[in-house]
Amino acid sequence: MDAIGVFDSGVGGLTVAAALRRRLPRESILYLGDTARLPYGSKSPDTVTRYTRRNIEFLTERGVKAVVVACNTASALALPQLDPEHHLKIPTWGVIEPGARKAAAVSRGRVGIIATDATVRSDAYPQALRAIRPELEILSQPCPLFVPLVEEGWHDDPITEQIAVRYLRPLLDAGVDTLVLGCTHYPLLVPVLRRVAGPDVMLVDSAEAVAEVVAAGLAAGGIEAATLHTPEHHVCVTDAGEKFHQLAGRILGEDVTLEWVEVT
Amino acid sequence: MDAIGVFDSGVGGLTVAAALRRRLPRESILYLGDTARLPYGSKSPDTVTRYTRRNIEFLTERGVKAVVVACNTASALALPQLDPEHHLKIPTWGVIEPGARKAAAVSRGRVGIIATDATVRSDAYPQALRAIRPELEILSQPCPLFVPLVEEGWHDDPITEQIAVRYLRPLLDAGVDTLVLGCTHYPLLVPVLRRVAGPDVMLVDSAEAVAEVVAAGLAAGGIEAATLHTPEHHVCVTDAGEKFHQLAGRILGEDVTLEWVEVT
Repeated sequence: MDAIGVFDSGVGGLTVAAALRRRLPRESILYLGDTARLPYGSKSPDTVTRYTRRNIEFLTERGVKAVVVACNTASALALPQLDPEHHLKIPTWGVIEPGARKAAAVSRGRVGIIATDATVRSDAYPQALRAIRPELEILSQPCPLFVPLVEEGWHDDPITEQIAVRYLRPLLDAGVDTLVLGCTHYPLLVPVLRRVAGPDVMLVDSAEAVAEVVAAGLAAGGIEAATLHTPEHHVCVTDAGEKFHQLAGRILGEDVTLEWVEVT
Repeated sequence: MDAIGVFDSGVGGLTVAAALRRRLPRESILYLGDTARLPYGSKSPDTVTRYTRRNIEFLTERGVKAVVVACNTASALALPQLDPEHHLKIPTWGVIEPGARKAAAVSRGRVGIIATDATVRSDAYPQALRAIRPELEILSQPCPLFVPLVEEGWHDDPITEQIAVRYLRPLLDAGVDTLVLGCTHYPLLVPVLRRVAGPDVMLVDSAEAVAEVVAAGLAAGGIEAATLHTPEHHVCVTDAGEKFHQLAGRILGEDVTLEWVEVT
């Protein structure tokens, strides 16, 4: 189908799909939300790698020309484990590298990473940041309740703000000037995070940065969509849910039809 | 292996396994925590039914003589859907019926149900309660953040208490005298729930009630373990995790060795 395949554990990766649609308006996008096995952030590297492999197989079987792993946990844990011969036959991008590059470009020296348990344990962001600016001070904080709070619809709520204060306190006390939103659900928490972190801390969301990298990659590979091409956007989920449908509509700014698919 | 098979989406069902061990000290128990696909409570009936079917197949392939579905969501959504010919060939019990019976026995007339989204939507507890005492007033409240809060280790925390106040307020304002803990994770929240609900509200946990029903069922079927039998307890998980290990130790009061298994 000549589309760009994008997958995430759930609805959060649609923030990446939305950035791709803005940056690459001629490209079709096939999105897969693995909602039947969500969340990934509390699971082991082996399990996340197995799910990632199957999701990539699903997208390639549907004929996509490139894959974007919009899930930070899958990008951090699974991408380095995949066999290029079998699972990376088409161009494949994760979100860690672009997000780290953006944070390294704007930070005055102290970077905080907020992410799922699994992404923090992987050390993927600090490694990527140090490869670019070895002198950076980096602090990481797992925030496992943020994904369920977003899914509960409490993304802008006084209780969520208290939880954010507790999670962010050690980073803010240490004087971080830049905060990497290391999970695709977190952009929905920006109003709360902005109030808690204050106006002087840069919030870095990797969605826009990923879209830039993908645009450059497609151009370099000569696989951009033709000018006369009419883009098609399609969303698949492994478990249908009303909350996914509502949040998807809010992120994409239009009503979304969901196709239920089985990925085991 | 002649054991009783018990499964749950995660660690919570070990509260049922612990009650079975107290009530039936001669029985061996094979426990399966489907942690790779946890949580069930936010997922659709079809998906929960598919997972339940596969978990029961896993346990019967290991030779258990009976199955206890310790997960409220799976008991509510999947058990009524299963084919007796194929998936219920051995005695199989869920947790809804025993919990409802216990609540019906103690309530002065107004029962509150707290459970996952999926269990509340299934209407399984109200149906079971009304079958016993049609005059009961019943109110239900989904509490989707309770499972992640327990898993974060914040089971006895001021923030959890505020969230409990918000979830329980409509039930307490309506004057419920009995509160059914309709999820196997919730017994771990009893100190918080007790403070929020006050001393006059009965908290009903179905673990002990299930153990009674299983004991009676094994006796009726003549499949109790022999007196000289040395019981063996074994815990399988579909995703290994340190938090599961810690919580399992706390619930069972002993260190637990986990076997990783694949159930797709």
